[in-house]
Amino acid sequence: MALASETDVLGVVELLSAYESSEVTPREVVQQVYYRLGKADTNAWIATRDEAAVLDDAAALADADIEDKPLYGVPFAVKDNIDYAELPTSAGCPAYTFRPESTATVVEKLCAAGALLIGKTNMDQFATGLVGTRSPYGTCENVFNPEYISGGSSSGSAVAVARGHVPFALGTDTAGSGRIPAALNGLVGLKPTRGVLSNDGVVPGCASLSCVSVLARAVDDAALVERVAAGFDPADQYSRRSDGLFEDAPPDTESLTVGVPAAEDLEFFGDSEAERLFSAAVDRLDDLFDAVERVDFAIFEEASDLLYNGPWVAERLTTVGEFIKDHPDDIDLTVRGIIRDGEMYSASDAFEAFHRLERLKKEAAEIFERIDALVVPTLGTIYTIEGEQLNPIEINSQLGYYTNFVNLIDLAAVSVPTGQYDQGPSFSISIIGEAFDDAQLVSIADDVANPEFIA
Amino acid sequence: MALASETDVLGVVELLSAYESSEVTPREVVQQVYYRLGKADTNAWIATRDEAAVLDDAAALADADIEDKPLYGVPFAVKDNIDYAELPTSAGCPAYTFRPESTATVVEKLCAAGALLIGKTNMDQFATGLVGTRSPYGTCENVFNPEYISGGSSSGSAVAVARGHVPFALGTDTAGSGRIPAALNGLVGLKPTRGVLSNDGVVPGCASLSCVSVLARAVDDAALVERVAAGFDPADQYSRRSDGLFEDAPPDTESLTVGVPAAEDLEFFGDSEAERLFSAAVDRLDDLFDAVERVDFAIFEEASDLLYNGPWVAERLTTVGEFIKDHPDDIDLTVRGIIRDGEMYSASDAFEAFHRLERLKKEAAEIFERIDALVVPTLGTIYTIEGEQLNPIEINSQLGYYTNFVNLIDLAAVSVPTGQYDQGPSFSISIIGEAFDDAQLVSIADDVANPEFIA
Repeated sequence: MALASETDVLGVVELLSAYESSEVTPREVVQQVYYRLGKADTNAWIATRDEAAVLDDAAALADADIEDKPLYGVPFAVKDNIDYAELPTSAGCPAYTFRPESTATVVEKLCAAGALLIGKTNMDQFATGLVGTRSPYGTCENVFNPEYISGGSSSGSAVAVARGHVPFALGTDTAGSGRIPAALNGLVGLKPTRGVLSNDGVVPGCASLSCVSVLARAVDDAALVERVAAGFDPADQYSRRSDGLFEDAPPDTESLTVGVPAAEDLEFFGDSEAERLFSAAVDRLDDLFDAVERVDFAIFEEASDLLYNGPWVAERLTTVGEFIKDHPDDIDLTVRGIIRDGEMYSASDAFEAFHRLERLKKEAAEIFERIDALVVPTLGTIYTIEGEQLNPIEINSQLGYYTNFVNLIDLAAVSVPTGQYDQGPSFSISIIGEAFDDAQLVSIADDVANPEFIA
Repeated sequence: MALASETDVLGVVELLSAYESSEVTPREVVQQVYYRLGKADTNAWIATRDEAAVLDDAAALADADIEDKPLYGVPFAVKDNIDYAELPTSAGCPAYTFRPESTATVVEKLCAAGALLIGKTNMDQFATGLVGTRSPYGTCENVFNPEYISGGSSSGSAVAVARGHVPFALGTDTAGSGRIPAALNGLVGLKPTRGVLSNDGVVPGCASLSCVSVLARAVDDAALVERVAAGFDPADQYSRRSDGLFEDAPPDTESLTVGVPAAEDLEFFGDSEAERLFSAAVDRLDDLFDAVERVDFAIFEEASDLLYNGPWVAERLTTVGEFIKDHPDDIDLTVRGIIRDGEMYSASDAFEAFHRLERLKKEAAEIFERIDALVVPTLGTIYTIEGEQLNPIEINSQLGYYTNFVNLIDLAAVSVPTGQYDQGPSFSISIIGEAFDDAQLVSIADDVANPEFIA
C-alpha cells in the first residue's frame, strides 16, 4: 500500500473506478483516510469513528458485488446535525448533544450502498449561520487561505472534503448552508429539491425548508450521491416522491436558455474582483447556452428577505426553542440572539408571510417559464474571519443574498467553482432551477464547472 | 309567460334544456326570479341587482349562440364575500362594506358563460361560523323547518337556492361553510379541490384554505358550474392548474372501494335518528360499491381539531384583524371572540401545527391508497336556532366534526342529501376524495344522491 501522502486525493467516481480495476482496496483507502486525519490540523471534525470499526465495515464489503453497491467502499462524512447511531449528535452545541437511537435515513441508504462513514463534521451551531465561525468546536478556516472564513453552516463538511479527507460529505442547507461553504472551498455543492432526501434523523434549521445537501469534488460525484440517498420516506412529513428524477436524459446545454440577474440587481458589496469573476462566468455562459437572458431579481430578493427577517426564524424555535430557554448560557450568543428573535413573530405574521411567499412563487414560476435555469454568483464577495467577527449579522445577510430564496421558492441548486480570488478562496456560481429539475441542473453544472478551481 | 307561482323550479341543466327547446326565454326566467323575490319572506339576500339591469344582460344574450354559453341565461346568486362590481361587498358586516373595484374572477367566468347574477346572499359574518345565525342581516332559517338553523356560513346561498329563487349559488367553504348549509337544506354542496376556483375578489375565511363552493339542486348542475368557474388565475396566489380535471371519464362506481369511519369513530351527538339515517345510507353504499371498508377516522379528527383550536384562527386576522381592532363594536360578539383568539398564537405555534398537519396529510394519503373515497355524514345531528344561541361555540364545533379537516388535508368533497329528519331538515352524506379527484367524486355523488330529498 502506498502511503496516503503519496497518493492522489480521489473523487467518488474516480475511487469507484480504482476499485473496479483493483488498484486499491477499501481497507487501504480507509487506512489512508485515517493516516490523513492523523496529520490533519483543522477544526473540520467533531467526532470520528474508530478506525477498527470502519475497517470492519470495509471488510464486510469483501462478500459484496461492486455492481450492487453504487458507493462501494467510498468514505464519507456527515455534518453533526445528521444522526449516526454509533456517534453522538451535537448540532454544534456540546450541551445539546444526544445519542441518537438510530441512523438518519439518508445515511442508512448511503451505507447500504457501500459507503463508509468516517465521522461527524463541525458546523455553525444549530445550522444557524452561513459563516463557519459560530461553533464551540472552533472556527473552520478557508482551505485556500486560513485568514478567510470557510462559510457555513456545513463548514466542517466542506473543509473535510476540500482537504481530501473524504471524497464527499453531507451537509444541510436551509438558507445556503450547503452551497456557501462548497463555493468558498473549491467544491461542488448540490442542494437537491426539497423533500427528495429524507430529513428523518436530521436536526433541521427549519423543518419545512431544510434539505440534506451534498458536498463533493465533482458534479458527477454529487449527483451519484443524491441518486443513492434519494427516496420517499414516510418518517419525514416533508418527504416527497421523486421516482424517475434522474431517469430521463436532460436536454443539451446548447439548446437551453439561462437567466442572470439584471445588471442593477447584481450585488458584489463593492468587490470589483467578484464582479470581474462573475462577468467572466457569464461570458462563458454566452458560449455554452442558446441564450442568456437578464431577469428581474427583485422577487428573489424579496423572498430572501422573508427568510431571515420574517417568521421562518420562529420555525427554529420548534426544534431548539425549549432547549435554548433551559440552557441560555450554553448557546453561541449570536445564534441565541437570532433564534430568540423568532419569539417576536405572531401566527398572523406567519400567515401574512406565507401569503406573500405564495405570490412570489407564482411570479418566480413565470420567470422560469422563460428560462431553463437561473445563474447567479453563489456569494457576492468573500470575508476574513476577523471581519466577520466584527459584523456577524450584516455579513451573514450579505452571504445569503444569492442563496436564501432558493428553498423558500422551492427551487433546487448546484454551486460550482468557476474561478478564484487573488486572496485564495474560490469563486463559484449557482445554477438554480425549479423543483425536480435536479437532473437538468446537474447536467448544466457539469458543463459550466471549471475543474481547474476544484480544491 | 306563465306566472312564477305556476312554474316549476328548475335546476341548471333543466333550465338549459328548456332554453334549447324554446320553452322559455331568459327574459321570462328573470321576471320569474324577481316575482319570487318579491314574494319572498327570508333573510337569504343582502343585496339584489335592479331587475332592469339583469333584463339588459338577458337581452344581450339574444345575439349569443346558446352552444357558446354553457350557462346561457341561468340566474345565480353569490355569497356576500364574493365581489361583483355593481354591488357592495359586506362579508356580513355593514361597517366593513366596500364597493369592489372589479368582479371576482369566478363570477366573471360565470357571467361570460351566460349566467345572470341576481344578487348577494346572507352569511355568517366574515365566513366565521357553520350556523347561519351570526349575521346582522338576520338569521337564515332552515327551509324545511324555520325553528332549525340553516347552517352556514353560506346560509343565504343555500336558502336562496333551496327556495327556488335561483338554480345555483356560490358560497365559500373553509371548515364546511359550503357543505353544511347545503346538507341541511336539501341541496348538493360541491367543495372543489383547493385552488381550482380562483379566490381573487373573495374575502376568504382563511386565504390559504378557503374555496369558492357551489350549491345547487343536482350534482350535474354543481359539476357544470365548477367546470365553467375553474381555471388558473395568476391574481390568486393559491390558484392551481387544473387543466383536464373533468376530461377523463371517471371509473364506474361499482368498481370502487369506499371507506366509512369505524363504528366507534362515528359521532351523532346522541341523535339516534341521524345514526339510523347514516346506517341506511351505508346500506345503500354496500349495494352500489365494490367494497365498503371501515377506516380509522382519528387522523381526520386530529386535523379538524387543528383548524379551530390551532393557529389557523390567526389566519383570519390577516384579512379582518385590522378592521376588528378599529371597529370592535361593529362585530358580531361570537365572531369577534373567535377571530381575536387568533392573537394567542405565535409563529412558532403555527410552524408546530404545520409540521403536525404535514404528518397527518401523509397518513391520510396512506388511507386513500386503500379507498377511492371516504363517505361520512355531512353533519352528526341538527340544531334548533334557539339551541344554537345558547351554546354557539360547542355546537359550531360539533357541526364541523365531519367537515373541518377536508381543506386542511387538501381534499375535495361533495355533500348530497340521502334522507330527511322527522323534524324537516335533510340528512346528507359527504363523498370526500383526494385533490383533483373532483370528477370521480361528482360521479359517485350522482350515484348516491337521492333526488327525493332535494329541496
